[in-house]
Amino acid sequence: MEQHVIDAALERIRAALEAGQVDEAITALISLHPADQAEAFSDLKPDDQAEVLPRLNVDAAAELLEQLGDDEAAEAASRLSPGRLADVLDEMDPDEAADVLGDLPPDQAATVIAQMDAEQAEDVIPLLAYDDDTAGGLMTPDFPHLRRQMTCQQAIEHLRKLHPETETPYYLYVLDRDGKLIGVVGLRDLIISDPDTTIESVMNPDLITVPLGTDQEECARIIARYGLLALPVVGPDGRLVGVIHNDDIVEVMEEEATEDMYRLANVADSDEHVFSPVTRSVRSRLPWLIVNLGTAFLAAWVVSLFESTIARVAVLAALQSIVAGQGGNSATQSLTVIVRGMALGEVETKDALRAMTREASLGVLNGVAIGVIVGVGAYLWKGKPVLGLIIGLAMIGNMIAGGIAGAFVPLTLKALKLDPALASAVIVTTVTDCVGFALFLGLATVLLPYLT
Amino acid sequence: MEQHVIDAALERIRAALEAGQVDEAITALISLHPADQAEAFSDLKPDDQAEVLPRLNVDAAAELLEQLGDDEAAEAASRLSPGRLADVLDEMDPDEAADVLGDLPPDQAATVIAQMDAEQAEDVIPLLAYDDDTAGGLMTPDFPHLRRQMTCQQAIEHLRKLHPETETPYYLYVLDRDGKLIGVVGLRDLIISDPDTTIESVMNPDLITVPLGTDQEECARIIARYGLLALPVVGPDGRLVGVIHNDDIVEVMEEEATEDMYRLANVADSDEHVFSPVTRSVRSRLPWLIVNLGTAFLAAWVVSLFESTIARVAVLAALQSIVAGQGGNSATQSLTVIVRGMALGEVETKDALRAMTREASLGVLNGVAIGVIVGVGAYLWKGKPVLGLIIGLAMIGNMIAGGIAGAFVPLTLKALKLDPALASAVIVTTVTDCVGFALFLGLATVLLPYLT
Repeated sequence: MEQHVIDAALERIRAALEAGQVDEAITALISLHPADQAEAFSDLKPDDQAEVLPRLNVDAAAELLEQLGDDEAAEAASRLSPGRLADVLDEMDPDEAADVLGDLPPDQAATVIAQMDAEQAEDVIPLLAYDDDTAGGLMTPDFPHLRRQMTCQQAIEHLRKLHPETETPYYLYVLDRDGKLIGVVGLRDLIISDPDTTIESVMNPDLITVPLGTDQEECARIIARYGLLALPVVGPDGRLVGVIHNDDIVEVMEEEATEDMYRLANVADSDEHVFSPVTRSVRSRLPWLIVNLGTAFLAAWVVSLFESTIARVAVLAALQSIVAGQGGNSATQSLTVIVRGMALGEVETKDALRAMTREASLGVLNGVAIGVIVGVGAYLWKGKPVLGLIIGLAMIGNMIAGGIAGAFVPLTLKALKLDPALASAVIVTTVTDCVGFALFLGLATVLLPYLT
Repeated sequence: MEQHVIDAALERIRAALEAGQVDEAITALISLHPADQAEAFSDLKPDDQAEVLPRLNVDAAAELLEQLGDDEAAEAASRLSPGRLADVLDEMDPDEAADVLGDLPPDQAATVIAQMDAEQAEDVIPLLAYDDDTAGGLMTPDFPHLRRQMTCQQAIEHLRKLHPETETPYYLYVLDRDGKLIGVVGLRDLIISDPDTTIESVMNPDLITVPLGTDQEECARIIARYGLLALPVVGPDGRLVGVIHNDDIVEVMEEEATEDMYRLANVADSDEHVFSPVTRSVRSRLPWLIVNLGTAFLAAWVVSLFESTIARVAVLAALQSIVAGQGGNSATQSLTVIVRGMALGEVETKDALRAMTREASLGVLNGVAIGVIVGVGAYLWKGKPVLGLIIGLAMIGNMIAGGIAGAFVPLTLKALKLDPALASAVIVTTVTDCVGFALFLGLATVLLPYLT
């Protein structure tokens, strides 16, 4: 939508920098929405970024770092002096500040923390202990809270005094004397209730919470499933330690979907983008291509076992790829539906047998349909009914194998606590290649007298 | 997280229904969180669903229909009498009620609307004109609004009187006399500002809005990008006509990611689930398998042009799949990165040339690496240096072709206003199969004297 606005601003920024007018460039940059500033900033050359960033004021730099992707934010942070970076981190949400610090070398991070505001440092330091991709890493430890005996009016006044800057406090958590979470009040309920009602009587005591170590994908699933704006995170002692906001989860969902898509396509680095540096993309893609190459040689070896058959009936070489390829396509369909179902929490390890049976029976149905078409097609093309029979049967067999493998492999990976999307595609297509070649060429070898 | 709770409730529900105790079953069902009720309900047999649904009270049935997927909600709605359904729809959010009505046959929908509450019908009817997957179909027309000259205290009192039931009004829109949108106030700002301040002085006049016909994917992108809780939708005359809430967008994002993943894997029906009826999955998967089959025969025909070469050097049949397959893998990597980049709004049609050049150069780099490995591997395996040279060169050529096709196809589909994920995988792998076979077997034919 705003693309032309960003492009126009970028042009102004580049022209200003070329003319040495850094202030002019900064004016153009900060005229954009913060999210758009990040996009424009990312599109600048590293030298230009280095020129602009130190001259942004602290608030603008903090907004920019919050909006940039993790890698870019870390790179940008490394361009600031420790003192300046400390000032910028003071203005950021604690969870985002922790992400930046976590990406710095430990000694640099320590230097920066030492120069940060004591209160902010106190919020940020505990977060450094948690993985970026867990509830602990996603949450902000800075949340408004209420006591049950307050009235709604008192709560509103409390908020007015206490939390003018806190990030979107649309849910207000009610804590008991020990910091344990006992309920939640929506900001809306606070407003629409009679001012003299107590918090206890308007709060909802039925809370969905997650422990600190919960995987970010699980957090996203819960927020999406229950339509939450925020998800409270509790420590081992039941105390409320932080809150994950819905807008952080939107990013997580995008990240997780990208990761699954990339893994199914054997792209290793889920932060690879269309215009990442080429060397980064080579590192992201080449290793899996090499792994695939190993499995491709395995499939080639299966074919080579039947070289003497192929030398006598060379048309087999033309048709073999149909059997292997269609099996692979069918297996990829099964694999994708299963992997996505797992990501959306619709299929669990306990459903494994049912899912495999279902995909196998789909293999039978689609296999018979495709097998008949392919058999008739091969017969019409080459005029040999036995050839049609062989390819039809091999096709059915391979599509059943594909269906089973497409379900078995991701479910097994999940049961082993590995990512079901990782390596699944390689394993599954290796199965359909090898089974397809072996079935088709094996049947052809047995029935060779009828083919020549 | 709550899976065991749902499973336990399901067991109680099934046992109660078996014993003919529908009330008992309903008690077990409504003890769950609404989102979990929908999951448990979906897992019941159609007969059981038909028994439970009409006996739920109107509010519970409304919650259930809101939480069910579109198809399931339509099916459930068809189990209710028109009068009952009208009562249930009266309790639903207008956008969700419109989705249900839109899936009914028009005459039935008309009968139901006639029995609905006049005020709700007035909200719902205009929504029926919009596609489910546009801003108009996603928005709710029922939103609280303020006037600029109100004070914050008056606004709070206005909300208290007026909108106790409205869905999450965390943003309050400020309208002028003509219904045009002039600003937005966060509920938080309302609370933390001095009660006597005017709305005009606390409102933010910089608004991001979308027109009615905006595609849902674009709406999701804007909400995610700018971290919004709600997105206002404006009519052609600039009047505010509705608001899209952030939680509806989470579903849209899941849907769109599923659709892209499925399309890349040639699964047509993005509502197919792991445990959809088998016939539905056949309808979703078989057509694309048949399309693929056509392209597979095309590739087989390319191979058949070289039958006499293969008859003399049968090992070519073993190695040809490596060339075609690795090209396909590499092309799928490019395709996936490009399609995902488009979905996230990172790559546009204007970037086409740059993207293609980049993917082609990745093809060169990865192609040389894989070409050298495959060439040396083939040489070591079969002891023929010329064979190694041929497969190495063909590999490089095919990986360049794959990179170009992987970028060109989705960008072209997008330029033609088609879904870039749709059919891309089929076209791209057809290119790498045909080019791979032709390059490898063609080179082998030219250099045949050195191979025999």
